[in-house]
Amino acid sequence: MGAAVDTGERVEADYWLETPGDPRRTAEAMAGEQSSGTFIAVPGETPELTARAAARIERLELLDAAECPALPGARPDMPTPQEGYRRAHVTLSWPIGTIGASLPNLVATVAGNLFELRQVSGLKLMDIRMPRAFAQAYAGPRFGIAGTRRLAGVASGPLIGTIIKPSVGFGPQETAALVDTLCRAGIDFIKDDELQSDGALCPFEARVDAVMRVVEAQADRSGRKTMVAFNLTGDLDQMKRRHDHVLKAGGTCVMASLNSVGLVGMIELGRFSQLPIHAHRNGWGYLSRSLALGWDYTAWHKLWRLAGADHMHVNGLANKFSEPDDSIIASAKACLAPLFPHRADAIMPVFSSGQTIRQAEGTFRALGTTDLIFAAGGGILAHPDGPAAGVTALRDAWAAAVEGIPLADKALASPALAAALGHYA
Amino acid sequence: MGAAVDTGERVEADYWLETPGDPRRTAEAMAGEQSSGTFIAVPGETPELTARAAARIERLELLDAAECPALPGARPDMPTPQEGYRRAHVTLSWPIGTIGASLPNLVATVAGNLFELRQVSGLKLMDIRMPRAFAQAYAGPRFGIAGTRRLAGVASGPLIGTIIKPSVGFGPQETAALVDTLCRAGIDFIKDDELQSDGALCPFEARVDAVMRVVEAQADRSGRKTMVAFNLTGDLDQMKRRHDHVLKAGGTCVMASLNSVGLVGMIELGRFSQLPIHAHRNGWGYLSRSLALGWDYTAWHKLWRLAGADHMHVNGLANKFSEPDDSIIASAKACLAPLFPHRADAIMPVFSSGQTIRQAEGTFRALGTTDLIFAAGGGILAHPDGPAAGVTALRDAWAAAVEGIPLADKALASPALAAALGHYA
Repeated sequence: MGAAVDTGERVEADYWLETPGDPRRTAEAMAGEQSSGTFIAVPGETPELTARAAARIERLELLDAAECPALPGARPDMPTPQEGYRRAHVTLSWPIGTIGASLPNLVATVAGNLFELRQVSGLKLMDIRMPRAFAQAYAGPRFGIAGTRRLAGVASGPLIGTIIKPSVGFGPQETAALVDTLCRAGIDFIKDDELQSDGALCPFEARVDAVMRVVEAQADRSGRKTMVAFNLTGDLDQMKRRHDHVLKAGGTCVMASLNSVGLVGMIELGRFSQLPIHAHRNGWGYLSRSLALGWDYTAWHKLWRLAGADHMHVNGLANKFSEPDDSIIASAKACLAPLFPHRADAIMPVFSSGQTIRQAEGTFRALGTTDLIFAAGGGILAHPDGPAAGVTALRDAWAAAVEGIPLADKALASPALAAALGHYA
Repeated sequence: MGAAVDTGERVEADYWLETPGDPRRTAEAMAGEQSSGTFIAVPGETPELTARAAARIERLELLDAAECPALPGARPDMPTPQEGYRRAHVTLSWPIGTIGASLPNLVATVAGNLFELRQVSGLKLMDIRMPRAFAQAYAGPRFGIAGTRRLAGVASGPLIGTIIKPSVGFGPQETAALVDTLCRAGIDFIKDDELQSDGALCPFEARVDAVMRVVEAQADRSGRKTMVAFNLTGDLDQMKRRHDHVLKAGGTCVMASLNSVGLVGMIELGRFSQLPIHAHRNGWGYLSRSLALGWDYTAWHKLWRLAGADHMHVNGLANKFSEPDDSIIASAKACLAPLFPHRADAIMPVFSSGQTIRQAEGTFRALGTTDLIFAAGGGILAHPDGPAAGVTALRDAWAAAVEGIPLADKALASPALAAALGHYA
C-alpha cells in the first residue's frame, strides 16, 4: 500500500464499496458514470467510441455485508436487499488518453460524481496509481527528506519541532519572544499554527521579520538555523509575495493549508517555491472521518505530494483527536514509500497533536525510521525544567527508541528525560 | 438561509453538532481548538491575548439526541452517555483581525481541525457569514444571472441546456457534429462533461475550434450564439491559455471543476476570466453525503461564488443520484439569494441529472423564478421526434409551469410536448 506501480497507459483507482445491489453491477455503474455516462444511448455513440474511452473494472474482491446502509439515499425506493449491503474492494482503470497527465482532471475522474450514486451506500477512495506521464508533468517534492535535513542541519534522528501557541493572539514581538526561547532550547523546527497567516493582529511580514531576527541570531551562536515554517496560506499573489519575503529574510520553510489552497494553488506554489513546503492537512476530518465515505489518506496524499509538498501532517499516536493509531501509521508509511520508483520522492511525515516523550517508542517501532518531524506543544513547553529540557527529553526519548532501551533506563543518564517521565503520564 | 448578514468585524459559522458530551462544553472545545488551541497553558499566554483572538459561542440551540454516535472515534474510551449523543445547532464567531479578509484562511478557521475532534460524533458546517471586508477582497461573480442572459441571448425563461455525451470517446469532429445538431435544435447552452478536458483523444484547442465553427455558423443563421461551457480544468497556466483560446474563438463561457481546481485556483481564474465561469461540483458527494459530516451546500457554495463562479451545479429534482429534492431546492435558493446586500451577486443554479419535461413544474413551483440553467441529456436527445422537438418540449414544459397550466393542457397546442409526454414517464 502507498507505493505507485507504473500502470503503463491507464490510471487505476481502488475503492472500498458498499452497495444495496450486486457489487459487480454497481462497479459497472461506477465505470459507466465515470466514462460514457448517460442514462439513454445518444446519437453518435458507437461501441468503438465507448471502448476506446471506457473505464474498466480491473479487480473486484467481495468482503462482508452489513444489515444497514452506511450512508443515506441508496435506492430508498427499493426494499432492503436480502443479502444485506454488500461490501467489496473494487479497482477501476481509465485510459490516460481521456484524462491527460493532469492532476485536476485525474481528481474529477477518480473522485467525481461517484460518491452520490444511489447504487452505493458507502464509497471510499483508497488508493490511486498513475502512469509515469504524471511524474513527467509534476516534479513532486523538491526538498523531501534529504533537502529538509540539509536545510535544518539535522543529519540523523527526527526533527524535533513545535507549534507556536496560542494559535492566535500573539503579535509579531510576542511570537518572536517565544521563538527565541525555543531556539535557545535547541529545537530543530517551529511552525505557525494554521489559524495564523496574515491577520491584522499578527501581520505576516512583520512576524517573519521579528522571528527571523531571533532565528538568525541563534544560528550565529550555534551554527545551525532552526527551520521555521511560516504559514503563507492565502491567494496566489499573496503566497508568492510571502514566499519571497521569507526567502529574503533567510527563512528555510513555508507552510500552506492544503484544503484551503486547493490543488491548482498547491501546484503553482510547488513550482514557484524555492523552499520546502510544509503541508498542513487541516480539514482532513471532513474528508475522512466517516468510515464509509470520502478519501483514504494514501490516495489523498499522493495528489499533494506530486504537487510539491515536502512535509505532510499525519496526526500522532494517542492523539487528542478521534483517529486510531493504525490509521496514523498507515499515513506515515504512505509518505515514506516511493511514489514513482525511478525517483527519490519520499516526504517527511509530520507527527503532532498531544505528542510527548511517550509516543517516541511506538512511532519508531511502527516505522523503523527517524525520517520524520515530531512536533510537540505542551510536550516541550510544559516540561517542568523548561523548554530546553523539553527538547532534550524528546531527543533522549527518541534515542532510547532507536537504541531499543526502555525510557526509564535511558532516564538514568538524562535528568531531562527523568523529569519528563514524572510529568507526562 | 443562504443570505449573508454583515457581521461587522466577526466571521460567523453555523454548525450542526452531535456530541457524546455536554453540547456547550463541546462548543467551547471547538472554539478553543479554533483559536488559542493547545492542551496546556504556555508561557506568554495571557487572558488579554486570549480574549482579543478568541472564538466565541454566539448561539447554541439544543436539538434531539441519538442512541448511537453518527461517526466513529468519539471518546471511544468513555461509556455511552446516559443522555445519548446530543445534537445542537451552534454558531461560533471569530474576530476578522486574526483571519484577515482571506477566503483560504477563512476555510482553515471555520472548517479546520474540527471534524476530527473526539468531542464530536457528528459535525456539519451549515452556513458562513462574512463581514463586508470579504466583499472588498473578492469581486464575486462577474457575470451572474444578467451577464449570462445577455451573452446567451436569453432574456427570459430558463436557459435550456445539455451536456455533451458520451462524456468521453468523441474526438473534436464528433463533438462538433453533436453540437451542430444541438445548435440547430435551438438549444441555449451546452457544456462539456467534467471528464472531458484536454486528453489526447479530444484535445481542448481542437475541440474548441471545431465546436466554435458550428456555433458561429448557427449564430450567423439565427442571430443568437449558443453558450458553450468548455471545460478548461487543469493547471493554472493551462486554464489561462485555454480561456484565451475560447475567448479568441468567440466562445462565451468556460467551465471548471471546483473540487479539482481548489479555492486559490478558482480565485485566480475568477480574477483572470473575461467569460462567465460555469462551476461544476463533481466530488460534492464526498463532502456532503453523510448527514453527520462535512459541508452543507449553503456554506460551501459561498466560497466559490465569492471567488467568481457564475453558474453552480445543484443536481436536479428526481435525479439519478441519492440526493433528496428538498436539498436540491435549498441549494438553488442559496445561489439565488444575495451574498452581500449591497451588490447584485446572485448566480445561476444549474439543474442536471436525469432532467426531463417532468421536472419543470416542480422546480419552478419551488423557486418561483426561471433564473436558472436546466440541463437535460437524454431529456433532449432521446425525444422521439429528435433534438429540436426535445428542446421545444422543454421550453413548452417550462412555459406551462410559469403559466400554471398542466402539461397535458399545454401539450394540446405543442406536438413536441405531447410526444414528450408519451415518452418521458
